[in-house]
Amino acid sequence: MCDQLRADYLSCYGAKAPVTPTIDALAARGTRFDRAFTAAPVCGPSRMSFYTGRYTLSHGATWNFVPLPVGERTLGDYLDGAGIRTAVVGKTHHEPDREGMKRLALDPALGQGRLLGEGGFEPFARDDGVHPRGRNHRHQPYNGFLRRNGYGGENPWHDYANSGLDEKGELATGWLLRNSHRAARIPDELSETAWTVDRAMDFIREQGDKPWCLHVSFIKPHWPYIVSAPFHDRYGRDDVPPPVRSSAEREDANPVVMGFQAHPEAAAFSRDEVRLNVAPAYMGLVSQVDSHLARLMAFLEQSGRAADTLVIFTSDHGDYLGDHWQGEKELMYEQGVRIPLIVVDPTAMSGAGQVRSELAEAVDIVPTILDALGLPVPTHVCEGRSLMPLVKGGTATWPREAVFSEMDYAIYPTARKLGLGAREARMVMARTARWKLVHFGKAMPPQLFDLHNDPMELEDLGRAPGKQAVREELYGHLFDWMRNRRNRIGMTDAAVEQRPSPAAAGGVTIGVW
Amino acid sequence: MCDQLRADYLSCYGAKAPVTPTIDALAARGTRFDRAFTAAPVCGPSRMSFYTGRYTLSHGATWNFVPLPVGERTLGDYLDGAGIRTAVVGKTHHEPDREGMKRLALDPALGQGRLLGEGGFEPFARDDGVHPRGRNHRHQPYNGFLRRNGYGGENPWHDYANSGLDEKGELATGWLLRNSHRAARIPDELSETAWTVDRAMDFIREQGDKPWCLHVSFIKPHWPYIVSAPFHDRYGRDDVPPPVRSSAEREDANPVVMGFQAHPEAAAFSRDEVRLNVAPAYMGLVSQVDSHLARLMAFLEQSGRAADTLVIFTSDHGDYLGDHWQGEKELMYEQGVRIPLIVVDPTAMSGAGQVRSELAEAVDIVPTILDALGLPVPTHVCEGRSLMPLVKGGTATWPREAVFSEMDYAIYPTARKLGLGAREARMVMARTARWKLVHFGKAMPPQLFDLHNDPMELEDLGRAPGKQAVREELYGHLFDWMRNRRNRIGMTDAAVEQRPSPAAAGGVTIGVW
Repeated sequence: MCDQLRADYLSCYGAKAPVTPTIDALAARGTRFDRAFTAAPVCGPSRMSFYTGRYTLSHGATWNFVPLPVGERTLGDYLDGAGIRTAVVGKTHHEPDREGMKRLALDPALGQGRLLGEGGFEPFARDDGVHPRGRNHRHQPYNGFLRRNGYGGENPWHDYANSGLDEKGELATGWLLRNSHRAARIPDELSETAWTVDRAMDFIREQGDKPWCLHVSFIKPHWPYIVSAPFHDRYGRDDVPPPVRSSAEREDANPVVMGFQAHPEAAAFSRDEVRLNVAPAYMGLVSQVDSHLARLMAFLEQSGRAADTLVIFTSDHGDYLGDHWQGEKELMYEQGVRIPLIVVDPTAMSGAGQVRSELAEAVDIVPTILDALGLPVPTHVCEGRSLMPLVKGGTATWPREAVFSEMDYAIYPTARKLGLGAREARMVMARTARWKLVHFGKAMPPQLFDLHNDPMELEDLGRAPGKQAVREELYGHLFDWMRNRRNRIGMTDAAVEQRPSPAAAGGVTIGVW
Repeated sequence: MCDQLRADYLSCYGAKAPVTPTIDALAARGTRFDRAFTAAPVCGPSRMSFYTGRYTLSHGATWNFVPLPVGERTLGDYLDGAGIRTAVVGKTHHEPDREGMKRLALDPALGQGRLLGEGGFEPFARDDGVHPRGRNHRHQPYNGFLRRNGYGGENPWHDYANSGLDEKGELATGWLLRNSHRAARIPDELSETAWTVDRAMDFIREQGDKPWCLHVSFIKPHWPYIVSAPFHDRYGRDDVPPPVRSSAEREDANPVVMGFQAHPEAAAFSRDEVRLNVAPAYMGLVSQVDSHLARLMAFLEQSGRAADTLVIFTSDHGDYLGDHWQGEKELMYEQGVRIPLIVVDPTAMSGAGQVRSELAEAVDIVPTILDALGLPVPTHVCEGRSLMPLVKGGTATWPREAVFSEMDYAIYPTARKLGLGAREARMVMARTARWKLVHFGKAMPPQLFDLHNDPMELEDLGRAPGKQAVREELYGHLFDWMRNRRNRIGMTDAAVEQRPSPAAAGGVTIGVW
């Protein structure tokens, strides 16, 4: 899993730049999903959907730093029972439910409590990168690694791996977008991306022939946008595609969308000098991931693991890079919610190289992994469905008409400006093959896009009088989706279906004269 | 709390019979809610909504015997932290989440695990009655009580408390409706209802001046419909009101409704000889509750506790008794979903005797109790709202336009007959002051009733062409209600609203040139 990697910045998804031969090779060996979507266009909730197989509506970690409730089961719960060691290298963005653990008298430092604090993964080498909210970066293992390699100070992650030097030889922080074209102050082989792959190989080596599931979770190309040589100048301004935006988008747009346009990062990325300085660094970061992924794939090949390892390549969400006058990823445009998704099943090579246009979602990953392993999919808990029939080249009709993505925007300045309280500022997308509707809340108009006639999403039909029937159809999808939330997690579907009817149970008949 | 007590079988709610002076006196001392509704018209899910302040949609115990997930917080969690001993006498119908506890390595026999197995209540004298699914009736404390009083055999609950003797002196089981007119084989003072009140007094006496919250949970007037003398013949056939039903209801009705009409108990209660034999016993059971409640209220008065005890009288759902050609309670007619609700706050006597027509719900009880105690209401978890402003006689506008009730009917023969799977057979009601819509699932027509012009709910407008706009309005309420589900249980609303915006957090600014 990459972080903040939009699908159309991979050459197998049609990008001219960056060029991503390793990821393209995965697509050639497996199945590339052309219409795959995240359950939430921010890190935390998206990842919790990847880990639980449930939408944000159900798992409740609606935004970064919102804890995943202690009762939510994750991939680790399902694989643990099957004797499969399940670990993470890199980022999870999982926030432990300290209050929930306290209520149940669970010790976060011990046993089950420890895994509950790590999203169900054994933290083989967990490193979430260093975020501005001041997580304790002293204890991030990558910082320890840098120190052992001679990069000192309080926070070498920032001072070396995510900063450059300016013309005067002074520190040029990667936090500032004007520095994105500079080279980071560490060699590529000591980068976070290289470190992540090295730790993944350590884990796989250690596990030998015993079964495992490893979440290899790259922090990049997420900001800070700055990368080591030679990737810092592999791409230039001429490689940056023109922005997907129109001046009409800034006039009389949806109030929430206009609010997000006014956020600092959106304002910055709306300036060409910013886009043209940052996008090449972003591309460089993608190429860097591709390059180290090549080492990992070669290692799998050499160790014999390529023959019995299911590989899933994806990202938690995208990045606007100035498209639609936005930075970051929080709205529901394709650049934010569409994700790359490639599944390589070495036992299903009949599907090699296929491109599937069926709608796929982040919540499908847990069912897919369980299905691939021959384990039962808990359909009373998981809200996605196994992609394996498609991966195996199946031709049966895919029963999904729409995909869904959610975003809790209560924390953002836009919500406050619009006077929306903590429980009101939620957006939700329903997207079919042709249409996309975004509902921003009861008091707001929706967005509606016709992806067939307007694939760039430049014309918002959310208030168009002639599109009432389409909006109703999409609202119908949202309604059915909410009705279908999996809440009966304490009883399997099979147990319900096999249960005797109440009037005939236990040898006593109710309601008989 | 009573079990299966419909509101209109209390004299303060307009019944000619039974006469309920004690409950009427509570209404005269406090606030009677005339439009109160259960969150689910079956015991288990309704009670879990009473205990959590959350709809079935959220707490997930969608039917009887479906466990309440271990992560769901209950009244006991909230009061425990405030030093208030919270216990139950009588029934909870709580099903422990054994799988969830196992996952978290919680011992069901110890500490937190024990309370999780009891819906958060200290089981001072828990007794769920004996249900046909063969719960282990040997260990029900009321059976122990009967044995100590000389009523022997394997199951004295059945053989004495819930059976009579026929003309030949042979056992006439209360399970058979033809026996409902007989007297149960124990004196009234040893009945389940009497026992429940006696145990409640034991608890209150034991607790002395220390604070407590007691769930006094009567098993009656739930079936088996049979009652001790003198209540067995207090009411007769002439006291039974005519059935609320029309022959048109059996023709071309909603497929789900017709399915339920065919269930054995519905078929039985559609026969007059059944109704006329059972309803007097049901009335007798209500009078019996009223009579023992008089002892409890007198005890509160004598012990001084009446002056500082908030009393809430309610029921988990109603009973059709043949109305609408139904037995039991599972559909969404008023007889099933409308519940009595009386709140007596001795510190708010300005509201004494008032009748409120505002819409009230089972999920309001937890917020009401917390509010009455001056404790914070966790609005990020609880989906109801405190009724205290109404109890105190407030005149501000009540912001609730609709109430909701849900029913998982996957277990019933009707679902199987209609080919609905475990996840499809869910019904949900939205009811405003005037209209009621019941949605049975995507493939089914809804029911719609105009409670203003058709208070008896005899004319289903679910498919009426002229009522499309009304149905859309009600579907809009359902949509907003589902969108408003409280899923962000790991972060309070205040924490969200006070959190700095992401771009300005931690001293590092994202997206700046």
